[in-house]
Amino acid sequence: MQILDGKKTARELEKKLKEKVLLLKETYGRAPKLYVVLVGDNPASLSYVKSKEKACLRTGIEGKTIKLPNTISENDLLKVIKDLNNDDTVDGFIVQLPLPKHIDENTILNAVSSFKDVDGLSLLSAGKVMNRQDGFTPATPKGVMMLLEHYNIKLKGMHAVVVGRSNIVGSPMAKLLLNKDATVTICHRYTTELGFYTKQADIIVVATGVVNLITADMVKKGAIVVDVGINRVDGKIVGDVDYENVKEKTSFITPVPGGVGPMTISALIHNTVEAYMAKMENK
Amino acid sequence: MQILDGKKTARELEKKLKEKVLLLKETYGRAPKLYVVLVGDNPASLSYVKSKEKACLRTGIEGKTIKLPNTISENDLLKVIKDLNNDDTVDGFIVQLPLPKHIDENTILNAVSSFKDVDGLSLLSAGKVMNRQDGFTPATPKGVMMLLEHYNIKLKGMHAVVVGRSNIVGSPMAKLLLNKDATVTICHRYTTELGFYTKQADIIVVATGVVNLITADMVKKGAIVVDVGINRVDGKIVGDVDYENVKEKTSFITPVPGGVGPMTISALIHNTVEAYMAKMENK
Repeated sequence: MQILDGKKTARELEKKLKEKVLLLKETYGRAPKLYVVLVGDNPASLSYVKSKEKACLRTGIEGKTIKLPNTISENDLLKVIKDLNNDDTVDGFIVQLPLPKHIDENTILNAVSSFKDVDGLSLLSAGKVMNRQDGFTPATPKGVMMLLEHYNIKLKGMHAVVVGRSNIVGSPMAKLLLNKDATVTICHRYTTELGFYTKQADIIVVATGVVNLITADMVKKGAIVVDVGINRVDGKIVGDVDYENVKEKTSFITPVPGGVGPMTISALIHNTVEAYMAKMENK
Repeated sequence: MQILDGKKTARELEKKLKEKVLLLKETYGRAPKLYVVLVGDNPASLSYVKSKEKACLRTGIEGKTIKLPNTISENDLLKVIKDLNNDDTVDGFIVQLPLPKHIDENTILNAVSSFKDVDGLSLLSAGKVMNRQDGFTPATPKGVMMLLEHYNIKLKGMHAVVVGRSNIVGSPMAKLLLNKDATVTICHRYTTELGFYTKQADIIVVATGVVNLITADMVKKGAIVVDVGINRVDGKIVGDVDYENVKEKTSFITPVPGGVGPMTISALIHNTVEAYMAKMENK
C-alpha cells in the first residue's frame, strides 16, 4: 500500500510552478493575479480562503481577497463580478461558496467570464468538460487527476467508480476519468447496494460527506481509493472512507487530511496560471 | 417481451403536440418556426432533413430548410447563423451535421443562440445538461427519455449501462439517466470485457455504430434494451444489437428501424415548441 500524498505532491508541483511564474513575470512584466470574492464570514470559507492566499504566496501569484458583507444584494455582487471581468489586470477569480441564501449561486457563477473562471463552475466551463474541450475544470476533480498523474497511474481500461454526483466534484470527476478512457460508474444516494459497484472498482473516488461510507468489505484487494470527503468528527478531520481498515486492502490511498485537499488548492493556482498564459499569448 | 415502439409513440406524442400547437397559434398569432441549415448534399443528411420537414407538417410547425453549397466559407455560414439568431420569427434552428471538413463544427455549433439551440449541441446547452439545469437536450437522448417515460419505465435505482460516449448521444444520455436517479456505467471502445458490464444492466442503451455489438449472452434476463445504432447492411437498416437473438431475453426492446429514430425527430419538434413557448411567455 502506498499513500497518495497530496500535501507533498502539491508542494512539488507548486515548486515547479513557482519557477514558471518567475519566468512568466520576466517575459510579461507582472505576476498572474487571482482574486477571491468572499461574501460573509462563514468560518469554513475563511479557512479555505486563507489556504488559497498561502498557496499564492508559495507560488509567486498575486492573490487578493475581496471581502463583502453578508447583506450584499445579488445585483451589487453582480457589479463586483462585472468589474473583475473587465479588469485587465485580473487573470482569474473565484466566488467562494456557499453564498447567502438571498443570492442565486447559478446566476453569480454564470456571470464569471469564461476566460477568468478558474474555479470552472460556470455553465460554459461545465459544457467544455462535458464535450471534452479545453477549458477550466473544477479544482477538486482537477486536483485528483493531477495527483493520479503524479503517481503515474494509468486510467485507460480501468473500472472507475465515482460515489457522489455533485456539479462541483462527482459529475466532472466522472467525466475526467471517462476522458482518460476509464470505464466509469456513477453512484449516489439512490444507488441500491453501493458495495456491489465499489467492489468491482479498480479505482474508487468518493465525495459524499458521509463519514465511514466506504468500509473494507466494499473494496477490492489492490484497488486505488481517493477520498474527497472532509468531515469534522470530535474535532478531528476525517474523510468518507474508513481509512484505518480500508488502507491495507488498497494499492494506493489518499489520507484525509493531506490527500485531495492540498491538491484542490494547487489545481486552482494552476488554472490561474493557465488563464494568465492564455491571455498573454493572445495579446 | 414488449416492443418499445418508437414510431407509434412518436405519432401519439405528435398528435398531442399538434393540438397544443393549434392552441398556441390561436394565442400568439403564429405557429412555431424551425429552420434547418443544410450544407452540401450528403444523402444521409438529405434524408434526415426530409424526415424533419415531414414531422413539422404532421405537427403544424412551420419548417424551412436553408440549403447552402458545400463550398460555403466558415465566415459566411457564421453570418447565416447570426441572421437566424437575430430573426425574431425563428424560434429554433439546427445545423445539420456533418459539415464539410473546412468548417469547424464546434465554432458553428457554439454560435447558435442558446435560446434557439433546439438540437442542444452548443457548449452552453451541454453545460446545462451537465449541471442539471433546464435547457435544450440533444434530440436523440431526449427522444430515448420520452420513449421510456411513455412506457412508464421508472429508472430510479436501476443500473443503466450506456455503450458509447459521444457528445451527441452517449455522454448526454448517461447524464439524463443519472438525473433520473439511475446508477450509470459508461462503456466505450477502451472498456475491457464489455459483456461484464452489460450483463449487470437493468437497462442498456447502445450507440456505437457497430453492427451486432450486443449479443444475447451479454444481456441479463428481463433487461430493457435501447438500440440507437443505425447501420446499413446489405441495403437493410440494422442497429447495434443482435435483435433477433437478444429480444427474447428482454422485458422491453427497441426495434431498428422504428425505435429511437422516430423519437429523435419528435424530440427535436418538442424542443422547438418549448423554445417558442419560452419566447412568447417572456415577451
